[in-house]
Order: sequence, then structure tokens, then C-alpha cells
Amino acid sequence: MRAEPFAEEALRRDDFLGGSAKIWQPKQGLGYRAGVDPVLLAASVEARPGQDILELGCGAAPALVCLGVRVGDLRLVGVELQPAYAALARRNIAENGLQGEILETDLARPPAELKARSFDHVLANPPYFEQGKRSAALDAGVELAQAGALPLADWVALAAKRLKPRGTATFVQRVERLPELLAALSMHLGSVEVLPLAPRVGRAPRLILARGRKGGRAAFRLCPPLVLHAGAAHLEDGEDYTNVVKAALRDGKPIIFDG
Amino acid sequence: MRAEPFAEEALRRDDFLGGSAKIWQPKQGLGYRAGVDPVLLAASVEARPGQDILELGCGAAPALVCLGVRVGDLRLVGVELQPAYAALARRNIAENGLQGEILETDLARPPAELKARSFDHVLANPPYFEQGKRSAALDAGVELAQAGALPLADWVALAAKRLKPRGTATFVQRVERLPELLAALSMHLGSVEVLPLAPRVGRAPRLILARGRKGGRAAFRLCPPLVLHAGAAHLEDGEDYTNVVKAALRDGKPIIFDG
Repeated sequence: MRAEPFAEEALRRDDFLGGSAKIWQPKQGLGYRAGVDPVLLAASVEARPGQDILELGCGAAPALVCLGVRVGDLRLVGVELQPAYAALARRNIAENGLQGEILETDLARPPAELKARSFDHVLANPPYFEQGKRSAALDAGVELAQAGALPLADWVALAAKRLKPRGTATFVQRVERLPELLAALSMHLGSVEVLPLAPRVGRAPRLILARGRKGGRAAFRLCPPLVLHAGAAHLEDGEDYTNVVKAALRDGKPIIFDG
Repeated sequence: MRAEPFAEEALRRDDFLGGSAKIWQPKQGLGYRAGVDPVLLAASVEARPGQDILELGCGAAPALVCLGVRVGDLRLVGVELQPAYAALARRNIAENGLQGEILETDLARPPAELKARSFDHVLANPPYFEQGKRSAALDAGVELAQAGALPLADWVALAAKRLKPRGTATFVQRVERLPELLAALSMHLGSVEVLPLAPRVGRAPRLILARGRKGGRAAFRLCPPLVLHAGAAHLEDGEDYTNVVKAALRDGKPIIFDG
């Protein structure tokens, strides 16, 4: 848990969406830094202007900011337990000219002001590791961001409760936890869809985007994998994203659950 | 339920594995006929000579026969509720020179002679539709083969009970039922893996092969899709299978859970 704010010199301001979004976050090694996962998560949420958006465990809010910048005219709400990250999230929302608020609270005990509201879309990038199943991180804030205490099923249940009818909940998660995530999505939501994210053509996906719709009645769908990198080997400069991914990361284009 | 045997003129004998296996089954419209699914299922079971194999709901036993012919020296056991199909299964095992027996019994009430045995590999192609969720078939035997009464979870639980330590259970199923199948596999087995079967490159998979290992402790894996057909459009003559699939269907080569 990280209560005290980050010192200015511990922070860097990164360009997202080709510079359309600018995100303050801790420098390498000084806290949890977002990669491409929250950007792809935000790109996959089919929000329309005027809608209400909730992110659970938003960290410094890169996903909320990317979604807000891409779609425009959204009312953004983020929930973040750690005060230092909640402060970053507020700063990032304000400096990108977006409307939103960050509730500093534990997902396991959602406050009345959250319970009183409902949302068109909920998104979340829950911790990738179950607590106790990985080596402890050096920084407690990183530990909490990477290995949460709350079971995935509770994230999904909370998202489902806060959705308006026909609203969607979208999660990005490691493929290893797909069985757990699918079970929860199938229990609380309908029209469940999974979009695997494969590092390269013909390689096993490491991450999945998964979503469900409140009151949805369509059968489960598994989309063909979205391939992240072109070519067969990794290029040092990170310039080898496939066109669809490049368009999402650089140009703020949406990612479609396709196939 | 089909109790009385098929008349000889209702049957045809089809070549599988390029003619290495020959399977008696009902002619089109006169009963349930196997397609490529049981052949791909059998191709994906990593059996070795000398092992014990159990198929749940084996029908006319195309999967058991294909597996037995491919690997050689297996002890095959099939369970089939419908007497007419059990008789076909016995005939197919005998005429392909394989060792095996077919137990004519309801999976919901496994007999003592089944409970007394354990197996290195269990395989099953459970009915693709939940009973009552599709239009009724004209033939009651087809209906039972396509829309079973037993929940998928019970198929998985029975398979897990009959496995030796480190043994595998492999299922082929419609992708729509992946959440249900994954939940059951994760509950009863470990090292769960899913191989989606996509009709063409970039198209959503319609079927999945899914397996778990008794006592397995590896994380869940989602393999890259196995693409069934080459090219972008369907060719009338069915000669457009991809090389890996053609090798499995025609040459009796294994299918690997890859990636």
C-alpha cells in the first residue's frame, strides 16, 4: 500500500495515443508503470459520447484517460485503493481536459456513493497474479498492483452490480486465469466474448480481453487472436506492432471483438 | 433411444485415416453419422502402446478405432447407452483388428465393472447441444447423440474419476460451451489446455479440443487456433483441408496442443 504521494522527481510523463493523451506515472523501478495492456483495454470498450464509465482499480488511470480522449464527452469514474495512485489519476484526468472523479476506496468495501450509481461500461485490469503465488515485489505499491487480494470473481460481481441494463464489463487478464474469469463472467453476465492477444502469428496468447453484457443472451464467443507483433522475432525498438495494434496504440482507433 | 439393431441396408462402411480404419455407420438420414470431429479428437490423444483408453458415449466408435489404429496395442473400452450403436462399435473394433469392449450403459449410472477400472486416457465427444435447446431431431437416436441429458460437468467428473494419476481426459465440444467445460475441467483436473479449431485463418473457432490432466499443476494454456480449411472460401469437394488437418484425417498423424 502506497499512502504518501510520489515525489515529482519519481514521476515521468508519457505520451499515449501518439501524444493525444499524456500520463504521469512512476519512473521505472519506483512504482507500477502501465504498458500497452490498459491502452488495448480502453480501445476495446465500445463507449459512445455521453456515457458513464467506471474503472475498477484504475491506478494512475491510463485506461480511463485513453478511453476518454478517444471517445470524448464521457463521465469517468475510477476506483483506486492506493492514495498515491489516486492522486496521479486525478492529475491525469484533469491535465487531459477530461471530466471524472477518482474514489479512493477498497473494492471489497465499495462506498455508498459508488453503490448509488450505475454505468454503461465498466473496465478493469485486475492484478495479474494471485496474492502469494509470486515472489514478493520490492515495493508494496507494486505488489498490490500486481498481486491483488480480491478474487477475480469479486471484481466481476462488483462490475456486474454497477452496470446499467445492456451495459458491458471488459477485463484484461493473463490467459492463465481465463477459466476463473470465464466462470465469473458466465455467472454474472451474458453474451460473454473473449479476444485472445497473441504475441505473434501462431504463438499462444499470453493475455486475453474478456467481456460480458448485463442481460446479454448470446452464446459464448471466442474470437480469433489479435496478433500484437508482426514478424517472427522481437525488434529492439518496439516498432514491430501489427497495423491494428499500432492504430489502437498510436492513433486512438478502437479494437473490435471480431471474427 | 435406439434399441433395435440397424438393418444392413441402413449402414455404410466409410474409410477413415486414408482407409487404414473402416467404420460402419448409419447412412445419411438414418442415424447419427460421425464427421471429422471424432477423428481430430482421437488424433489429439497422446496415447502410447500398451495403455488403457476409455471413451464415454462412443457411438459407433470412430474415435476409439482411429486412436487404436494410429497408436497400436491399446486396450480400448467404450461406453454407449444405445444398443444399436454399441453393436456397431463392437463390430467396428473387431473388423479393424483391435482389442476392446463396449459397455452398454448409462453414463449417469456407471456399472461396477467400469468403476473397478482406471485408464491412461479418457476421451469424449459429448452431445453438442443441451437437451431442450434445439429443435427435436426426427430420430430419437440422433436426438440422444446430439442433445444429451447429462450435463458436461458430469462427463468431466466421470472421466476424472476413471483416470490413473497423470492420465488425461480430452473432449471435443462446440466453442459456445467452453465456459461450462472449462469450469468442470478446472474443478476436477489440472494442466488444462484448449486448442480452438477455426474453420479458416482469421475466423472465429466453432469447436474446441480441451483436455486436463489428473494431478496436473501447470497453468491453464490457450493454444493458437488449429485452422481446418486452407483458402478463403469453401470448396465443394472438401479437398481444402490444411496440411496438419489433412495429415491427421488421411495419414493418421497426431495433432499437438501447440504454441
